Amino acid sequence: MSVASHAPDHIRAITPYQPGKPISELAREMGIAEASIVKLASNENPLGMSTHARDAARAALGDLARYPDGGAFALKAALCRKFGVGPEQLVIGNGSNDILEIAAQAFLGPGCSAVYAQHAFAVYPLATQARGARGIEVPAKHFGHDLGAMAAAICEDTRIVFIANPNNPTGTFLPGAQIEAFLNEVPQDVLVVLDEAYTEYLSPAQRYDAIAWIGRFPNLLVSRTFSKAYGLAGLRVGYGIAHAEVADLMNRVRQPFNVSSVALAAAEAALEDEEFLAQSAELNRRGMLQLTEAFSALGLEWIPSAGNFVTFKIGDAAGINRALLQQGVIVRPIAGYGMPHWLRVSIGLPEENARFIAALKQAMA
Amino acid sequence: MSVASHAPDHIRAITPYQPGKPISELAREMGIAEASIVKLASNENPLGMSTHARDAARAALGDLARYPDGGAFALKAALCRKFGVGPEQLVIGNGSNDILEIAAQAFLGPGCSAVYAQHAFAVYPLATQARGARGIEVPAKHFGHDLGAMAAAICEDTRIVFIANPNNPTGTFLPGAQIEAFLNEVPQDVLVVLDEAYTEYLSPAQRYDAIAWIGRFPNLLVSRTFSKAYGLAGLRVGYGIAHAEVADLMNRVRQPFNVSSVALAAAEAALEDEEFLAQSAELNRRGMLQLTEAFSALGLEWIPSAGNFVTFKIGDAAGINRALLQQGVIVRPIAGYGMPHWLRVSIGLPEENARFIAALKQAMA
Repeated sequence: MSVASHAPDHIRAITPYQPGKPISELAREMGIAEASIVKLASNENPLGMSTHARDAARAALGDLARYPDGGAFALKAALCRKFGVGPEQLVIGNGSNDILEIAAQAFLGPGCSAVYAQHAFAVYPLATQARGARGIEVPAKHFGHDLGAMAAAICEDTRIVFIANPNNPTGTFLPGAQIEAFLNEVPQDVLVVLDEAYTEYLSPAQRYDAIAWIGRFPNLLVSRTFSKAYGLAGLRVGYGIAHAEVADLMNRVRQPFNVSSVALAAAEAALEDEEFLAQSAELNRRGMLQLTEAFSALGLEWIPSAGNFVTFKIGDAAGINRALLQQGVIVRPIAGYGMPHWLRVSIGLPEENARFIAALKQAMA
Repeated sequence: MSVASHAPDHIRAITPYQPGKPISELAREMGIAEASIVKLASNENPLGMSTHARDAARAALGDLARYPDGGAFALKAALCRKFGVGPEQLVIGNGSNDILEIAAQAFLGPGCSAVYAQHAFAVYPLATQARGARGIEVPAKHFGHDLGAMAAAICEDTRIVFIANPNNPTGTFLPGAQIEAFLNEVPQDVLVVLDEAYTEYLSPAQRYDAIAWIGRFPNLLVSRTFSKAYGLAGLRVGYGIAHAEVADLMNRVRQPFNVSSVALAAAEAALEDEEFLAQSAELNRRGMLQLTEAFSALGLEWIPSAGNFVTFKIGDAAGINRALLQQGVIVRPIAGYGMPHWLRVSIGLPEENARFIAALKQAMA
């Protein structure tokens, strides 16, 4: 018997998360210059990051031999000011991926189940499976969450329901009123993880305030990230806001130094730069138009998206993806999400979007 | 019923890891300037980090909106060159804390047990408990690991044995030949996690090559960190080396972007700077003499240490610790390690060590 053969079956059955192909990897594989590659595969901010955040990150380089502040005092204080919550309600994560994993670690185990939607973010089933819990995948409605069916799917042993709003990779959006109604239906001993990784891209008309609901719903965990609109994906920082009792349990299983001091400093500075967020959202709005108009002109079906990416139907997605890669354009195949005929493309700079559209036309020809 | 009351009992029973008090926290509490505080509480490198590593970290700030390379291609290539292993044998972690947690996540669960020593690193029992596994603590011998008793403690359901060499917080050291003999005794379906966080501080006479043993012992995981001698604690990066089958399972439960791009770049550069490591080890050797001579002069018992810290017996450790804090000196109380009459102090710069010795004399008076 080997060590590996003794690992639990649910661990041995895991297929790891497939990230977007790094630029450096494509450059190595194709023998082309990194600078000539357009990556629209990981929903990154094409504007980069706020200059305030970069300055704070640079300043933090002076003291890297010290452990980070595991209590994240300064970042928590900034989040408390911004959202009107107490520090005891906060969990700081190594990206919001960490928040999702910590929630699974704290509340799931063998004999429990978690509910999530078909075509929803891949980390929900992965985090569930890694804890030996049962995943209950609820069929999507128009590629988005069917909240009625999800509420109905909750069992006696369900401990977590994952909701992504907007959803990745489909970009679908649930109005706040529908989520609020859903929270009224869910038993208060079931944690609702509301993953708002893309919330900063919502239009003013779409906005809602989930954090304000936590007082009424002590079973609500709002998860957010600095990896998308804030442009700090490379640093790994996100946060969860919940009832103090939920946050306390999560902080017990959190690794004490899960976030680097550079990330803590940059996130704190990024949080204050509303202007950068507004610029990013506006660039995204225009890029979304640029891409969806091109899809329509090409006769391609696409799913209306509230995020910084859009998913379109292309038929032979694997073949088209290969043809795009050969032209130095990286998008995301989503066969692993049960959508083998679709591709997801992130909104880039106008010239990156144009490179993608031209490459797509050539790939289709 | 609340969400929290539904969490597994073993999660609700967790007492979180107590990190060293951050300088900023003591400054707030005491109303004193951060610059006047001496922190010798977290086994950090008082020289800071290699300038090569700092340059690499600074360069990485240019592309933070991109996700890190989750496959860590470049850092793995550097580790492979240095240690003569294959990339499929590597797991990159958010500090070696992450390596320990990933091993627990991959191999432990309810119905399993893990073996570790009394007075060993606190993350072993924590990571075990968080997976609902049973911890088997084996009494220490002269404050170190009793390998014979540990081998005898392995049960049918034991999946992991944790060995820290040197051990933290006691600094005790096991010669390589003893560990090799232990590996010969342990059943090959039990993972031996050999935590070598402080290995770069070993004297030439103490050195041994655990990585070379992996070919013979496919159940050996060697865990190392960039947080200690390499001076990158603030960035969070460590690594595990094991048989490919073990590394593969660990990589399945690893968060895909667990290490920041700044940390990946800095670690790769740090690995090449042997001169910085040698300087750090030499400073440590001299500082160890400075502190232990002072302890002897004060008539205090101390435990010979192979790390960058030393643990001494002081009686009323809590009271002495308070008196040190009032003088702006932070060391580590280790009552949580079952050593309520002892304090652990990290080796600092000569002037920091002197500040500590003076403060200790005053505290004792």
